[in-house]
Amino acid sequence: MQDADYIIIGAGAAGLTTAYELKKQGSSVLVLEARERVGGRTWSGMLDGAEVDWGGEWIGSSQHRVYALVKELGLHTFPTYDTGLKVLELRGRTSTYRGTIPSMAPWKLLQIQLAIWIIDAWANRVDIATPWNHAQASEWDATTLDAVRRKFMWSADARATMDAAIRTIFGAESGELSMLHMLAYVKSAGSMNNLISTEGGFQHDRISGGAQSISLALMNSVGTENVLLGQPVTAIAQDESGVTVTCASGKTFRAGRVIVAVPVPLGDQISFTPPLPALRQQLMNRAPMGAAVKIFVRYERAFWRERGFSGEAASGDGPVSVTYDQCSEDGKTACLMAFVGGKFARTWHRRDPLERKKLILDRLASYFGSEAKQPVAYQEMDWCGEAWSGGAPIALFPTGTLSTHGPALREPIGRIHWAGSETARQCMGFIEGAIESGQRAAEEVLALG
Amino acid sequence: MQDADYIIIGAGAAGLTTAYELKKQGSSVLVLEARERVGGRTWSGMLDGAEVDWGGEWIGSSQHRVYALVKELGLHTFPTYDTGLKVLELRGRTSTYRGTIPSMAPWKLLQIQLAIWIIDAWANRVDIATPWNHAQASEWDATTLDAVRRKFMWSADARATMDAAIRTIFGAESGELSMLHMLAYVKSAGSMNNLISTEGGFQHDRISGGAQSISLALMNSVGTENVLLGQPVTAIAQDESGVTVTCASGKTFRAGRVIVAVPVPLGDQISFTPPLPALRQQLMNRAPMGAAVKIFVRYERAFWRERGFSGEAASGDGPVSVTYDQCSEDGKTACLMAFVGGKFARTWHRRDPLERKKLILDRLASYFGSEAKQPVAYQEMDWCGEAWSGGAPIALFPTGTLSTHGPALREPIGRIHWAGSETARQCMGFIEGAIESGQRAAEEVLALG
Repeated sequence: MQDADYIIIGAGAAGLTTAYELKKQGSSVLVLEARERVGGRTWSGMLDGAEVDWGGEWIGSSQHRVYALVKELGLHTFPTYDTGLKVLELRGRTSTYRGTIPSMAPWKLLQIQLAIWIIDAWANRVDIATPWNHAQASEWDATTLDAVRRKFMWSADARATMDAAIRTIFGAESGELSMLHMLAYVKSAGSMNNLISTEGGFQHDRISGGAQSISLALMNSVGTENVLLGQPVTAIAQDESGVTVTCASGKTFRAGRVIVAVPVPLGDQISFTPPLPALRQQLMNRAPMGAAVKIFVRYERAFWRERGFSGEAASGDGPVSVTYDQCSEDGKTACLMAFVGGKFARTWHRRDPLERKKLILDRLASYFGSEAKQPVAYQEMDWCGEAWSGGAPIALFPTGTLSTHGPALREPIGRIHWAGSETARQCMGFIEGAIESGQRAAEEVLALG
Repeated sequence: MQDADYIIIGAGAAGLTTAYELKKQGSSVLVLEARERVGGRTWSGMLDGAEVDWGGEWIGSSQHRVYALVKELGLHTFPTYDTGLKVLELRGRTSTYRGTIPSMAPWKLLQIQLAIWIIDAWANRVDIATPWNHAQASEWDATTLDAVRRKFMWSADARATMDAAIRTIFGAESGELSMLHMLAYVKSAGSMNNLISTEGGFQHDRISGGAQSISLALMNSVGTENVLLGQPVTAIAQDESGVTVTCASGKTFRAGRVIVAVPVPLGDQISFTPPLPALRQQLMNRAPMGAAVKIFVRYERAFWRERGFSGEAASGDGPVSVTYDQCSEDGKTACLMAFVGGKFARTWHRRDPLERKKLILDRLASYFGSEAKQPVAYQEMDWCGEAWSGGAPIALFPTGTLSTHGPALREPIGRIHWAGSETARQCMGFIEGAIESGQRAAEEVLALG
């Protein structure tokens, strides 16, 4: 009477990894996906003939699971373009630098380095799987990164540099971040340096054909007949012998266990019978998604490369927090990507589209030269308005959440299990984390027999 | 072709006030309610023959709208019992006092008073309707009440006293509260004193027959045939000529405009066509409900009154944050109410039921005497597990939310309007606020013709 041994909800990298691992072990699986595509927060497409990644795109450093999976699936990577000058914009002034150290007064650099040391040191103290168990967890979770950093970052330039990083990593302002979440995230990533670096960091490589290729290849391996698209799940009911999953289409499916692999807050749109324990229910209402808009601008030529720029710029001023070179692997199409994050992203859609385009092109021109004002194509991807993501890149845990609700993050509830990058212990929030969570969820249900 | 001029979603005090006001002005209304009862976060019931308010119950001070409505509906109020000694429990020790000033070292009292002065003074600076427009809004919204108070409250006893108040008012810890939300809330309430006081404050009066009587009377006035119970709304679609509202039952209803009068986060369970602007969509995911458990213990006699106690106790130690005398208006039934809020409430359901009961009775005994250990009846109401509230008493706005998403709180989106106590300018979060929001929403739609 079962449609599959396991039903997986969400066909992002987490859900499809779960299905892939379970299928490998001989189980039958059914993946239900709300969208008409797989990949979740990874989505590769075309801008006027150029391949672009509208969502998550990079992998790097210690992320061994994703490299292994990429290899296993017959995919390839190529290094992010990282040659030449980088640009830093702070309080209305732009400067250029090579390597990893911005051109800034030494005492300001020292403040930035000090902040990195402090955060890394504190992060090292928390347990990667259970940061909420640390003796100082309540204290760290009662304050924000902004409140903490004000104690030792007196330089407005140093704070602005951090703003650029935080908006890019979290899609949030430092005042939105619980210090405990910040520390847990850094611990999960290994170091601050992993989070912010291209060369040797998490932005080291891109996937040939785009990051969505991973999910597409996983789907093919799982069997397209086992992945149903356009089936938002509205209800999960569990009983003594299994679970019944109902879709908005009215279709119902039956399995022994269900793995929910959607971003934490989206779980709240599913009606559970019996109701979930309050700690889990409230968690799903206490984890808003970050805010991110990825903007791609296509040009005739990679004029910035010709001028000796890497295409990487960081700005503490906004609306852009970082830019990256996004030329195709073969170098035949030339693109820049501008990332708008945090408070600028939340209200981005309220600005006039022409004003938005002008703003972005002006910023790019001030970083890399006036040629930036003559694009061939311009396209925005506003993740805040995406119904089946609710924002990007990741779910945030506001103050008071992780210390109290953390234990509910991965805890199974009867026949319901949880995957998704936010539930990862390693590289939480990244494609690597999605894969780690999927492998963990598969192991978890298989261990129950 | 319309079922009504206006559809109102949610039959709490806010939604029913909207319907009541619109009906008075000659409009036809249809109220859709998910639960099988009206009242929302007010719910009056019986514990072994004694009338109790499982949810919101008090009104007082400057709350003129609710007093006027109570009168208009032919209802009555009676004063909260406030005679005799009060108890304060801090760090394992209990003390008693009369009036409003706890027996505590003067320098500790001064710290509490200083905190009240500072919060009141800052709160006075923010605009009651648009706190997010204040020059310091971003700064206040980037830190928590806990981080701010640590700068001037060195006494652990003073902080613990504040914890008892904050857990009761917000169902949250001070580390969960954005300072901007705190200030906006205090401004909306008029003063800290209104929030914490019985005599002359917001806990001054109770409603004869229970606070739900307001909603029941409003429903009768609107016409029970115009209030459909057990109809959770799953979708709202708007077009050029009106809105179509779909319920979980499959029933659809049509009206010119819709007023959504549910707690902010519950709006996220409705699917909107066209999709809501991202700022509004993300707001609904960034406003978790507080955590509150109301516990009623019935006794043969009001032994605490006989012993000279008011029945009011406050504890910074938890799990109880406050207790109140809850004897019936006629004094014939004797009850105490223990309020568990914030972190203690979030995990309350994970404790063993017998352990919970023992814990509560032990606390009551230590406050009012060993007779507390011999109750006639004991009943808990855990709002965290209530599907159609998601928590209580109010929705919280974590750091970074109100400063950015505040403007979306009341802003209509085409034919969709918003009510609910969280959208109130005056007495946000209280029954008074629910009524204010309903009156404002009714005016708003009527002004559009």
